[in-house]
Amino acid sequence: MIMDKLYRAVEEKGPVCVGLDTDVSYVPQWLMDECNGDITQALFAFNKKIIDATKDVAGCFKVQIAYYEAQGLAGMLAYSKTVKYLRENGLLVIGDIKRGDIAKTAEMYAAGHFEGDFEVDMVTLSGYMGLDSISPYMPYFKEKDKGAFVLVRTSNPGREDFQYINTESGEPLYDVVGEKIAKLGEECMNECGYSSLGAVIGGTSALEAEEIRAKLKNTFFLIPGYGAQGGKAEDIARYLVNGNGGVVNSSRAVLLAYRKEDNELHFEESARKEVLRMREDIWNACKNLCK
Amino acid sequence: MIMDKLYRAVEEKGPVCVGLDTDVSYVPQWLMDECNGDITQALFAFNKKIIDATKDVAGCFKVQIAYYEAQGLAGMLAYSKTVKYLRENGLLVIGDIKRGDIAKTAEMYAAGHFEGDFEVDMVTLSGYMGLDSISPYMPYFKEKDKGAFVLVRTSNPGREDFQYINTESGEPLYDVVGEKIAKLGEECMNECGYSSLGAVIGGTSALEAEEIRAKLKNTFFLIPGYGAQGGKAEDIARYLVNGNGGVVNSSRAVLLAYRKEDNELHFEESARKEVLRMREDIWNACKNLCK
Repeated sequence: MIMDKLYRAVEEKGPVCVGLDTDVSYVPQWLMDECNGDITQALFAFNKKIIDATKDVAGCFKVQIAYYEAQGLAGMLAYSKTVKYLRENGLLVIGDIKRGDIAKTAEMYAAGHFEGDFEVDMVTLSGYMGLDSISPYMPYFKEKDKGAFVLVRTSNPGREDFQYINTESGEPLYDVVGEKIAKLGEECMNECGYSSLGAVIGGTSALEAEEIRAKLKNTFFLIPGYGAQGGKAEDIARYLVNGNGGVVNSSRAVLLAYRKEDNELHFEESARKEVLRMREDIWNACKNLCK
Repeated sequence: MIMDKLYRAVEEKGPVCVGLDTDVSYVPQWLMDECNGDITQALFAFNKKIIDATKDVAGCFKVQIAYYEAQGLAGMLAYSKTVKYLRENGLLVIGDIKRGDIAKTAEMYAAGHFEGDFEVDMVTLSGYMGLDSISPYMPYFKEKDKGAFVLVRTSNPGREDFQYINTESGEPLYDVVGEKIAKLGEECMNECGYSSLGAVIGGTSALEAEEIRAKLKNTFFLIPGYGAQGGKAEDIARYLVNGNGGVVNSSRAVLLAYRKEDNELHFEESARKEVLRMREDIWNACKNLCK
């Protein structure tokens, strides 16, 4: 099942998840010119080069659909081409869609993102509306080897507004959400010990890391917040279990690594270097933690 | 500003929001044949007939994007054509997208749904990630006359999982969310007394209706749950203020009204009748409430 595949990919290639949150402004001018200013072609050509240059050192890829929706139909076509290319190359792809709606509508989203033009291996979901907004995705877990990550505790400053509210029982809301997701996930356990229903756990604060990891021990984590958002490798390592059980996303730092190196022409080489640097950083932190 | 427009539309045409949650299976076979099985054409042709037949009796329209995402690129084109057609006809359209993401990503969604191919007047949003996932939409409220409805208390059974959790302060979570949204909305008040930042408040339970309406007195409501989901007019009326201050969505009951009447050929006539019936039902309930 999907988390076994992801677990193996992390064992083989490391925990870095390359985030293809590709803004049109990230595409170097020469490539935009080569694509005659066609946005679909430019976004896809940029992504393709990043994918080819990092696929042997990245555990998986995450495509943030908002960047493509921002470009309208041309963007959606680029999204479709990108996720298809990833899957054709046997790479694991998370559609970062953060959908959340009533059951009947969730069925539509599940069909939209686990089949057809936008098919991905895993999606991100928002559970505010309740567990009946999550469960319609789960038949696909067994039937089509799919998976999902539900927002539990995110990496942005605004998470304190609701996720950190203390509930009557004394637990913060994110804990209540995490526990319900973990319980639901028991229905779809993988051989590696993690369920097909993962959680989004921001890596920008290590304060609660050990507690969260211990409470959700069968839950695979998608960890945003490394780098640009302030998450450090030594913090991130605490959300992993011997370097696995989670993937650590980096988007801008990878996609725009070329700007720091002034390497527009071979932007994908800079991206690869950044993935390698980040992987080493996280691996080292994991080793230090085991000492 | 947008809520003044919506307020006037409800005054003139009533509080019914026609939900264009158009599943391909809803399109009668004769129309599908006429479109040679082309999904984009079929979905748009169906929607166009529904819009034309109800535009003088519906306060606004809501397009549930999940039904279009489910059809991939062809569906997204139908979505684009539908929202464009509504706006070209001077009708108010809510893009039911329920997006919710970190600020930088929210900026992308805002650009995607307040500009370009998918431009709508208002969107629905999910606030689980915090207020910084809502505020990036707000510059558009003043600059481009846009608005949004944030999920507060929804209409589905699963809402009890998280929205009804009691917080430390004794308030249920939905109240905390509602209050923060209302506070944020103070920045964008309209002449009609409502802010451009509305709330999604399910109409399937009237238990807390008076309390919610009193607490969020400057917040316009988008009310799902009438009919198919079990919401009755006498319950719904309690979320309105003299028949305004909210719009009441109905999707399947309107779109599939033709099946009850065995009127495939003129499905749009059945839809219109259902909108008129529903409007009368709600108006009567509002009158009874005022007695």
